Amino acid sequence: MSSNTRVACVMVGLPARGKTYIAQKVCRYLQWLSISTKVFNVGNYRRKLHGAHQMHSFFDPNNKTGESARKQAATEALNDMVKWFKEENGTVAIFDATNSTRSRREFILNYCRKEDILVMFIESICQDENLILQNIVDVKLSSPDYKNIDPEKAAEDFRARIAHYEQAYEPITESHLTFIKIINVGSQVVINMIQGYLQSRIVYYLMNLHILPRSIFFSRHGESMYHLMGKIGGDSDLSPRGKRYALALPKLIKENLGDQPLTVWTSTMKRTIQTSEHLPYPKLQWKALDEIDAGCCDGKTYEEIEETSIRDQDKFNYRYRGGESYRDAINRLEPVIMELERQQNIMIVGHQAILRCMYAYFHNLPHEDLPYIRIPLHTVIKLTPKAYGCEEERYRFDIDAVDTYRPRPPPKQNAQQTA
Amino acid sequence: MSSNTRVACVMVGLPARGKTYIAQKVCRYLQWLSISTKVFNVGNYRRKLHGAHQMHSFFDPNNKTGESARKQAATEALNDMVKWFKEENGTVAIFDATNSTRSRREFILNYCRKEDILVMFIESICQDENLILQNIVDVKLSSPDYKNIDPEKAAEDFRARIAHYEQAYEPITESHLTFIKIINVGSQVVINMIQGYLQSRIVYYLMNLHILPRSIFFSRHGESMYHLMGKIGGDSDLSPRGKRYALALPKLIKENLGDQPLTVWTSTMKRTIQTSEHLPYPKLQWKALDEIDAGCCDGKTYEEIEETSIRDQDKFNYRYRGGESYRDAINRLEPVIMELERQQNIMIVGHQAILRCMYAYFHNLPHEDLPYIRIPLHTVIKLTPKAYGCEEERYRFDIDAVDTYRPRPPPKQNAQQTA
Repeated sequence: MSSNTRVACVMVGLPARGKTYIAQKVCRYLQWLSISTKVFNVGNYRRKLHGAHQMHSFFDPNNKTGESARKQAATEALNDMVKWFKEENGTVAIFDATNSTRSRREFILNYCRKEDILVMFIESICQDENLILQNIVDVKLSSPDYKNIDPEKAAEDFRARIAHYEQAYEPITESHLTFIKIINVGSQVVINMIQGYLQSRIVYYLMNLHILPRSIFFSRHGESMYHLMGKIGGDSDLSPRGKRYALALPKLIKENLGDQPLTVWTSTMKRTIQTSEHLPYPKLQWKALDEIDAGCCDGKTYEEIEETSIRDQDKFNYRYRGGESYRDAINRLEPVIMELERQQNIMIVGHQAILRCMYAYFHNLPHEDLPYIRIPLHTVIKLTPKAYGCEEERYRFDIDAVDTYRPRPPPKQNAQQTA
Repeated sequence: MSSNTRVACVMVGLPARGKTYIAQKVCRYLQWLSISTKVFNVGNYRRKLHGAHQMHSFFDPNNKTGESARKQAATEALNDMVKWFKEENGTVAIFDATNSTRSRREFILNYCRKEDILVMFIESICQDENLILQNIVDVKLSSPDYKNIDPEKAAEDFRARIAHYEQAYEPITESHLTFIKIINVGSQVVINMIQGYLQSRIVYYLMNLHILPRSIFFSRHGESMYHLMGKIGGDSDLSPRGKRYALALPKLIKENLGDQPLTVWTSTMKRTIQTSEHLPYPKLQWKALDEIDAGCCDGKTYEEIEETSIRDQDKFNYRYRGGESYRDAINRLEPVIMELERQQNIMIVGHQAILRCMYAYFHNLPHEDLPYIRIPLHTVIKLTPKAYGCEEERYRFDIDAVDTYRPRPPPKQNAQQTA
């Protein structure tokens, strides 16, 4: 993959078809994979330029003032996008707007071509009226466009706005464009002229998304014998307290899920398999979920590891000699995330570093903070994906365990003070 | 993924549209991933039942005898397919025939539904006349249907056969079917109602195939210092002879490729990076190309490793303690294979076990033979993908190196003789 690839993902579709949801998901996924990505939302530019509260007539295709104001917002967003590609060495920009006419798409295409940006259109078509209404209720009525406006009036205005767009809407039929058309949340997908690695990854990711309600549970394995000795890595058994945690887990999960189905994923290591032993659900072992490989430091205590202070300087990128970095772990976890997007209720019984990587994906946390996320022992974290982001609950069990958390070291000047 | 998933991939399309090529590729890919897969080619059943040399009139939709004979062949193939699912616990069957009418597809769907088999149709549509002609010349005229028949007569008859199918051809429009439609070798792809992990993997694989001519070069890193000591694993430098190999490589590649572009992939280990050092092409390091992880045996000699004889009993599945098996390596190499399918000329400078896994994919070798494939040091292997399978050339350099090949142990009774 050439390092100067520039891809603009240009959203297409009527309002309330999940465009912003898709844009955010793709952005989160690519950022997690260390691909420099940014969303440019034309609505934000419109509000900045022309004020927040534009009523539906502003969006009437016959309203020339409205039309030129909207084009101005689009142009400013495009300018900023190009600037970002150049000045911040961006890789994927996501241009979030309706872009619902051929002429608008042609305008964007020509604009990007001059700047050597590959354009991939992502069109979302939804014919399910209930889903559209749900989206209006969940997302649109809480948008900045309708802040402090009576919800019923807002809904009415929004439906009128959609009607204006429907008048002028031309779904993509231009066969010279690179596009993916997602119909009814993925029940049909059409892809045209997809080229290159990045586009293909994005397409595969989009193919695998669903919006059915579900929960994702994370738990570290119970306390292990190596924990008691302060050692890292290895493949030790659970400690007596770890075994108590394994026994206590099923009740909590059962109370949470009732009769819903669940699949439990573990690593191939004894401590996660033993922790999930009593859970009455189908289980799957993933080699890719094995703890980060500490290489030459495997089986040592932090006191014995000389490189700890070097690792602390850039914990995300530090690769243990003969082992892995957090960045390496994310690469091998990518298929797990992909499969997780496809599945419904899943519980992952895993390891500290690995769960940090997964957790950062769902909460969109920056890589520099990732190695310091708190994932304590004997605690279940429940994530519930929502339109934008995840809701989270934590269940701490009343079973003691060692604390394996190593805080971020103080900044450099402090280190000099102690020297 | 439930272990009793059964998927039938049912090919759809006119003759000479690459159906058999697609069927073989998918089969090879899934078998390599240890997914039990088999192709059922209806043409083979037809030839067995009704003789090899049926001229075009046999395929005329108005020829009732021909039609019923062809349906008989399809039914026998379906029967065998169901038997294979049941008796041999098959996972993916590929049903290779034209299946070019709605009624035939409905017949297959109903047949499979009764047996709890999920059906995914794979339709190949090609409007490029040159490509179709090329396919006729490359493949069809050497098919068993035209053995010992004058090529010009064969071509004429085959075109008449295609015309019969064209009369009756109904491209898939049935929206209740699960399908992927591949138009002009992937320039457009339509997917409908894809469900489940396996179907999604197959779709992604198909999306990434291309048929542009290209070459794939494999080379192990040059002889290393660890080789001289008889040790496995580690991250040692090249030996003096290994360095001579690195210096000699560019000339051979240049002579082979001329001005064609090439990208060089290495692992993250010093010995592959040093070997590719003088190659004047863009380079990419893949962590996934690192040598199989020998876990607790890393840095030991085979004499020091006690488990060698246990490993020899099932070398493909044997996982080094704290390390990997060949099966594990294949799982982490899957993204490399996927990317390799997308790329054009690629040279991989890699490691013995890893190159065995890659080589087995291209030559469709069974897993039990995989750990015994000969990939000698100081040798370049050039693979050129063709319609069915790969052509191979080997270039042995005149630079001595240790022989790291460990032959398959003799069968058990011999072992007893020595005891």
